Amino acid sequence: MKRAPYVAVVGASAGTPSELALGETVGRLLAERGAVLVCGGMGGVMEAAAGGAMNAGGTTVGILPTDSRLDANPYLTIAVATGMGEARNAIVVRTADVVIAVHGEYGTLSEIALALKMGKPVVGLGTWELVREGTAIDAIVRATSAEDAVAKALGLAASLRGS
Amino acid sequence: MKRAPYVAVVGASAGTPSELALGETVGRLLAERGAVLVCGGMGGVMEAAAGGAMNAGGTTVGILPTDSRLDANPYLTIAVATGMGEARNAIVVRTADVVIAVHGEYGTLSEIALALKMGKPVVGLGTWELVREGTAIDAIVRATSAEDAVAKALGLAASLRGS
Amino acid sequence: MKRAPYVAVVGASAGTPSELALGETVGRLLAERGAVLVCGGMGGVMEAAAGGAMNAGGTTVGILPTDSRLDANPYLTIAVATGMGEARNAIVVRTADVVIAVHGEYGTLSEIALALKMGKPVVGLGTWELVREGTAIDAIVRATSAEDAVAKALGLAASLRGS
Amino acid sequence: MKRAPYVAVVGASAGTPSELALGETVGRLLAERGAVLVCGGMGGVMEAAAGGAMNAGGTTVGILPTDSRLDANPYLTIAVATGMGEARNAIVVRTADVVIAVHGEYGTLSEIALALKMGKPVVGLGTWELVREGTAIDAIVRATSAEDAVAKALGLAASLRGS
Repeated sequence: MKRAPYVAVVGASAGTPSELALGETVGRLLAERGAVLVCGGMGGVMEAAAGGAMNAGGTTVGILPTDSRLDANPYLTIAVATGMGEARNAIVVRTADVVIAVHGEYGTLSEIALALKMGKPVVGLGTWELVREGTAIDAIVRATSAEDAVAKALGLAASLRGS
Repeated sequence: MKRAPYVAVVGASAGTPSELALGETVGRLLAERGAVLVCGGMGGVMEAAAGGAMNAGGTTVGILPTDSRLDANPYLTIAVATGMGEARNAIVVRTADVVIAVHGEYGTLSEIALALKMGKPVVGLGTWELVREGTAIDAIVRATSAEDAVAKALGLAASLRGS
Repeated sequence: MKRAPYVAVVGASAGTPSELALGETVGRLLAERGAVLVCGGMGGVMEAAAGGAMNAGGTTVGILPTDSRLDANPYLTIAVATGMGEARNAIVVRTADVVIAVHGEYGTLSEIALALKMGKPVVGLGTWELVREGTAIDAIVRATSAEDAVAKALGLAASLRGS
Repeated sequence: MKRAPYVAVVGASAGTPSELALGETVGRLLAERGAVLVCGGMGGVMEAAAGGAMNAGGTTVGILPTDSRLDANPYLTIAVATGMGEARNAIVVRTADVVIAVHGEYGTLSEIALALKMGKPVVGLGTWELVREGTAIDAIVRATSAEDAVAKALGLAASLRGS
């Protein structure tokens, strides 16, 4: 799997039905395109995306904040128990080539910021907007649908690889 | 020092002269008020704030991303070498009772988000604004000066303690 | 894979030919028995064990100390980039139900000690012996062959699960 | 304090009265010699050593496994809350120039092993002995008293610095 792109899907641990449906479609499309799905391993959008990917035959990894892999959602090829709490967000991002943010709360915002700090591309589906001192910072690649998000994320991963 | 409030000052590792001056004043005022200053231990606003605090007789701790405490700025009572890169941002925030963000880049944004995720108050001086899906999220307590930021941060720390 | 046992195989990043052969056999047997192999993701015994498992159709995860998953050995279903250096040893152990130590150096000793601290069983193949203040501490389950090590590790994992 | 040596004192979170007395003397002597004491921040030998150092006017830092600095023992100049569990042992060791092990359990053994892996000297007071495959590994500098341990640790720190 070393050559497959790794795409982190980040979003709320509780999500609205439409957010969960969006996460599931993103996961399915990533699996169909041969990507490895990386997530935080818990519920909500993480679980929806992992479920979408696994049901499509994909490979999924969850990097958990808790100290037991039994806390993981059931749709993971591999569950990693870090026991590090929110500090694991940095590992989710570091493991991925590119990040897709599906809506999301403060944890998602921290993953967006860590990815940008590490120089990794972030694709956003209705998620946070970055504004600093009155100026919009145009660092998140905006997508209009799950299909668009996956196409953009895999395009960015491929261009990183080619460089 | 267990009873002293711990205040994290986060900001860019490179900063403009006015940002550095602001960080230094924040550090000095925190020291004069008896707070422990927590920072990421490197240069820029972290160094300016630590210098302001140490020159006023305060106690400062830097939590470094690198694996050598010799990489620290020279104004730290204690330098902690985590060797964890950006994952150390979670430790900076976790160690503090309240966070003051002085302008800042993506690393600072990750610390703001992690603090809010952990339920810790954030005071902002000209820093990021939080906007999600077109709606401003009013989670950062805005300050208009170093004096105002320190007063608000210590007030928030005291009210947490009283609760 | 949630029900499969997770077994960490720990050992030297450089190993003698006989240590590598032993690691490879341990990996192969674990895969044949349906276990997920967890390792540190780098070379030596980690690579030999992962190779043995993957060539037998098993699932393998490497938890890397570096900040790039491209540093991983080529026999991993999933590579996780922690960027945390030796602190990742705790994650290797925490993710596993049981640890098999194949000879090994100081890093391996740290993983044995962390596992015992966390209450996880450790099976040893010619590895460290624990002696404290003149008294042998009989905490490592000794195995005499790769077959014996895998049988004991999976037996311990099953008994933990049954409890 | 950048030039002061940093010495980690590691030992059991519960200790016998004689172990606690030994830890306290080690802490006091380190403070009298101007060293910064690093420890895991909790009870037992960590608390005894920190108390000995603080009562002698020294500077102490505790690097806690929990996510609240209020869990710390009361003898710390600075308490750092990592929220990382046993993974924090790597940070304790990484922050120090040299480690003194006072007896100790499995957590202490993990710190000894991590220090040796990182190339940092370890001084032992009645602690673990390292034996691998029937051969004693003479990597811990043995001390016969608190005075001897502190003298050896500071000598090793000075020679590292001179190199």
